[in-house]
Amino acid sequence: MSASDGITLIPLTGIGEIAPGADLAQMVADAVTPARPDGPELLNGDVVVVTQKVVSKAEGRLVAINPDDPAAKIALVEQESVRVLRRRGDLIISETRHGFICANAGVDLSNVDAGMAALLPVDSDRSARRIRAGLGNALGVDVGVIVSDTFGRPWRRGVTDVAIGCAGVAAVIDLRGTTDTYGRKLLATEICVADELASAAELVMGKDRGIPAAIVRGVPTAWLRAASVRSEIIRPPDEDLFR
Amino acid sequence: MSASDGITLIPLTGIGEIAPGADLAQMVADAVTPARPDGPELLNGDVVVVTQKVVSKAEGRLVAINPDDPAAKIALVEQESVRVLRRRGDLIISETRHGFICANAGVDLSNVDAGMAALLPVDSDRSARRIRAGLGNALGVDVGVIVSDTFGRPWRRGVTDVAIGCAGVAAVIDLRGTTDTYGRKLLATEICVADELASAAELVMGKDRGIPAAIVRGVPTAWLRAASVRSEIIRPPDEDLFR
Repeated sequence: MSASDGITLIPLTGIGEIAPGADLAQMVADAVTPARPDGPELLNGDVVVVTQKVVSKAEGRLVAINPDDPAAKIALVEQESVRVLRRRGDLIISETRHGFICANAGVDLSNVDAGMAALLPVDSDRSARRIRAGLGNALGVDVGVIVSDTFGRPWRRGVTDVAIGCAGVAAVIDLRGTTDTYGRKLLATEICVADELASAAELVMGKDRGIPAAIVRGVPTAWLRAASVRSEIIRPPDEDLFR
Repeated sequence: MSASDGITLIPLTGIGEIAPGADLAQMVADAVTPARPDGPELLNGDVVVVTQKVVSKAEGRLVAINPDDPAAKIALVEQESVRVLRRRGDLIISETRHGFICANAGVDLSNVDAGMAALLPVDSDRSARRIRAGLGNALGVDVGVIVSDTFGRPWRRGVTDVAIGCAGVAAVIDLRGTTDTYGRKLLATEICVADELASAAELVMGKDRGIPAAIVRGVPTAWLRAASVRSEIIRPPDEDLFR
């Protein structure tokens, strides 16, 4: 299927509860055919989007926290931050050691056991590479993998899913030097396809439905290459007008 | 098709060049079956995503500009802005009169005739409503419509498509009061599905391919309601930590 034929977003149901140490690639493999005969296929060239929450759980990135003590959460967020940009009430917008700028340093108390908080993966590009390699081993498929998380943003209400890690699929594609349909060079047109893929996958997952992964089928083959969120998406401070 | 069956993103090829005054709804109708037998269907419950560029062209939002005079573009951007947030070289990040915060107030010289610039629609929610009504008249279908544009964002490299107008499909869905899969209330979880739908559609359009519209099929029926980007997505200044 080429991109002009369209893209399909397939929710991956049937992935059970994730415990620390779980083999997430094997759990994805067990949720598709042939292991699960009524599950979807996973094909060469597909992109698998997995939410940060299950990646963090599988990697044991869980810490105990008293949910009734707001100061405990604030201390944990500060510990996970290298710099605080803004505070309002118990909301902290900060920069994580990965270079992500997000609310509460990605510390999350939803969809984890009571009294626990999930932290971001130590290196979510590495997490994506491991899942990709695991899927290759389990199923013999060559797929892209994106680890997604839910971020707010300035100026616009509502959150959207973005990529915090990727492997085997581009984070940013660069159309500079290509031309528009009038034959003129496109300037400064770098498209963050990994964030668009993460947002697209969220449409079939949903926080209230608890579906932790989705398959994106029909991604242009030119996007399937070695890639990294950290090196392609994190904007260096000297390029950034809003730090 | 329910959301759990997945979502399909279908590029809408075969839409010709758009002239001022063009009936964009009719052009979309002419690009699908039955008018175009080899085109896709357009079905009740589909969401049609149309890029700002063709909406602006159809609405005659074009002005003459000397492309070799940087000062002329800066003057035009300032005229389209109510407030400038940041400047670097010839890049201006400003707030438009609609309340959008974006680069160059949405003024765009690509994919328009040389010597012309496209401005944002005057009211892109109204643009979406008109296209939706036009599709209802032409085809008897009840669809959602999103007008999309390409915005940069702080802290992350690369641009993504977002919604600047919508009709018949939610801009933001509110999961507050619903529970996570552990039965605990989700807090502050407003999902900007219109931006996620715009990003998803961009994956099958592409600035270098010049496809100005896409169909999103399989959107949850609960999202299909009266809606507005302006009232749901634009963050009021007193809620915003980054103005």
